Amino acid sequence: MSSVTNEQKNEALLRIKQVLSERREEIFKANDQDKKIAEDLVKAGKLSSSLFKRLDICQGDKFDDILSGVSDITQLPDPTKKVTMATKLEDGLELYRLTVPVGVLLTIFEARPEVVVNISCLALKSGNAVILKGGKEATHTNAALARVIQDALASLPKSNGIPKEAVQIVETREDISALLDLDRYIDLVVPRGSNSLVKHIQNNTRIPVLGHADGICSVYVDKEADIEKAVKIVVDSKTNYTAACNSAETLLVNESLLSNGSFVKVASGLLNAGVTLKCEENVRTFLLNSDAISQELKDTKIEKAVEEDFSTEFLDLIMAVKTVPDVEGAIVHINEHGSKHTDAIVTENKETAEYFMTRVDAAGCYWNASTRFADGFRYGFGAEVGVSTNKTHARGPVGLEGLVIYKYKLIGNGDGAADFGSGKKSFKHETISPCDYKI
Amino acid sequence: MSSVTNEQKNEALLRIKQVLSERREEIFKANDQDKKIAEDLVKAGKLSSSLFKRLDICQGDKFDDILSGVSDITQLPDPTKKVTMATKLEDGLELYRLTVPVGVLLTIFEARPEVVVNISCLALKSGNAVILKGGKEATHTNAALARVIQDALASLPKSNGIPKEAVQIVETREDISALLDLDRYIDLVVPRGSNSLVKHIQNNTRIPVLGHADGICSVYVDKEADIEKAVKIVVDSKTNYTAACNSAETLLVNESLLSNGSFVKVASGLLNAGVTLKCEENVRTFLLNSDAISQELKDTKIEKAVEEDFSTEFLDLIMAVKTVPDVEGAIVHINEHGSKHTDAIVTENKETAEYFMTRVDAAGCYWNASTRFADGFRYGFGAEVGVSTNKTHARGPVGLEGLVIYKYKLIGNGDGAADFGSGKKSFKHETISPCDYKI
Repeated sequence: MSSVTNEQKNEALLRIKQVLSERREEIFKANDQDKKIAEDLVKAGKLSSSLFKRLDICQGDKFDDILSGVSDITQLPDPTKKVTMATKLEDGLELYRLTVPVGVLLTIFEARPEVVVNISCLALKSGNAVILKGGKEATHTNAALARVIQDALASLPKSNGIPKEAVQIVETREDISALLDLDRYIDLVVPRGSNSLVKHIQNNTRIPVLGHADGICSVYVDKEADIEKAVKIVVDSKTNYTAACNSAETLLVNESLLSNGSFVKVASGLLNAGVTLKCEENVRTFLLNSDAISQELKDTKIEKAVEEDFSTEFLDLIMAVKTVPDVEGAIVHINEHGSKHTDAIVTENKETAEYFMTRVDAAGCYWNASTRFADGFRYGFGAEVGVSTNKTHARGPVGLEGLVIYKYKLIGNGDGAADFGSGKKSFKHETISPCDYKI
Repeated sequence: MSSVTNEQKNEALLRIKQVLSERREEIFKANDQDKKIAEDLVKAGKLSSSLFKRLDICQGDKFDDILSGVSDITQLPDPTKKVTMATKLEDGLELYRLTVPVGVLLTIFEARPEVVVNISCLALKSGNAVILKGGKEATHTNAALARVIQDALASLPKSNGIPKEAVQIVETREDISALLDLDRYIDLVVPRGSNSLVKHIQNNTRIPVLGHADGICSVYVDKEADIEKAVKIVVDSKTNYTAACNSAETLLVNESLLSNGSFVKVASGLLNAGVTLKCEENVRTFLLNSDAISQELKDTKIEKAVEEDFSTEFLDLIMAVKTVPDVEGAIVHINEHGSKHTDAIVTENKETAEYFMTRVDAAGCYWNASTRFADGFRYGFGAEVGVSTNKTHARGPVGLEGLVIYKYKLIGNGDGAADFGSGKKSFKHETISPCDYKI
């Protein structure tokens, strides 16, 4: 897999797209089987209707979107074979660092069957092999998609070099525990799904996991905030798409904004957008006493916060609100309660912004912008493998770069370490052009 | 820690050097205490003399070397605050990716007390905090060194900003198991020591471990090898420093080199350098029948290999030898038995070399050069944090770059995700200059 060219990888992707399109009916039939079983589960209250909706790949343009997703990936640059370092150690002894695939990926995901296609294509484009395990609700659909992908790979001309075994699917829970133990053979786990799924995986494997469990993002409104911007950013961060991990869950307000009338504008913006505010006592008292808020909103949307609310990913029109004395207080709160995902400050003061962005320990530290921008497509990566809250390898929205690592190639002419040392050769360590890598 | 400047970090390092130098006697006294206890253990056969030797930091120039190691680190460029990506998402909405410290390191090491100084300084230079746990043989020395470092940090001017708590030491085994569980607070484990130590750590934590257990490096001598080069490279790879992880343990020989008389030159080179060859049957028979090898060497240095020898890190003048039919055979052997550390091919054929370097899954893939070059100083990194055989984050010899990760800073002007979409703004995704990052 590490030897295939970008052309071969794109050839494989386009072939997958073609065969998926040709065998649409077979896939839809499998999807219907899954939906029939799921329908009964929904009726019995054992499956949520949102999960059922995600299962359905026949509705509207869904399948065509999946297909165009495949050709989109062919347009991305090859993340492998990039020379990222080139050093002349000595005349005729040159060191190159090149990006290479990580190796074997394991993807564990829930009801969305399109992950089979999406992750397989991202894996292939980055030169990785992938093992897929989907949720049992989509068993037939997942199996059909994987079968079609493998058949597409098997039908490639022999010159292509990508074996059909590069994409494999497993179906039972027992397979997963066994696979999570295989850290000698599997290099990276890429989970796609709920917090509890990701947490379960993180707690049950020594293989590196690329992903995030929680997305507890905060917005801090500073005493020097432009309040128009603050209203817009806070409302967008909370309400633009509440189910996303980059939605804000916590609002931190500089305490001076209560008395000067600014905070009530931010709160009104949220309340009018349908957000329930879970407030610390001083904030709640302030809002309940404010003339600018209707009695109806006071009765229905202003609640008391408990400590746990500041560590909760609501994924809903709910926001936990508290005051902090200053930017330092905001930083301390975020570093204690946040999930290192994305946190924003609203302020007109450059120094305060830089102070916040340097000291908050999160993959994304934003100044006067909504947390909702934390996304691979918005960042311009073309594809998103996932959002990582790890502190090593890849952090934040991760594009194809997260699926590669590097190796060093040293090219000599019979050189030994004993040639170097006092009274002998010494190392030059000259940076040379990456383009010198031509052998 | 993530806010301190390079000047402040260097100020701290030079202060550490100064206080270490001033309190040399106190440290030597502590070292003497450890050595006194260790001497009895050596006599009782409970401690090896090589371990005892490593414990001693009073002998020769050892302590001065430790001190100059500290000032060497001040000369390295700051690995943090580098802008590695800069994208204009839209006018007035700019995304920057900057390197930042990983956070909190945990270093577990064996008898060499100088690791306290070395790792503390590498951690500080990269903006990380570090928790140290050394071997019990060096308890007094480690404690003295850590105390001096903390005192040096405590004596910095208030303007410096590095707290003395940035370097901490723990002393009991129980502390370690507790620390290995703290994956929420500790970001990276950097073990320094034996294979068994590293393996134990890897098997007992979910925190990422930067390091390697085994160093099973191979050299493959191809049918188109220049035999002069082959002799030199194989002998250097095996004998230059047998205790190092980058020493070769396995010799793979193209089978055609037996009949054409080339192999015997390589074998003689090794035998004459005192290496014992553990050979597969065909190689052994061939060597025992060769006129070019003395009866004495045949009697004392040529042994039968067992399967396990090809997965063993001898760390001694011993090499396992087998023939392979071609470069493909060498690749298959290495990918099955190697430890993804460093493997070399000797050949004059460019295509064969590239074939090997692309397909061998190792941090270092060398062509006509000794495996012994796999080292941070030889690579020009100035410092070596360790050699990693991981497939994520950092691979091969790791310099200060391995102790940093990145964060994204997004700088807007009141931007919301809802401003973008069909009929609204669209993303520009223009690459901009990293130098634009000035706020």
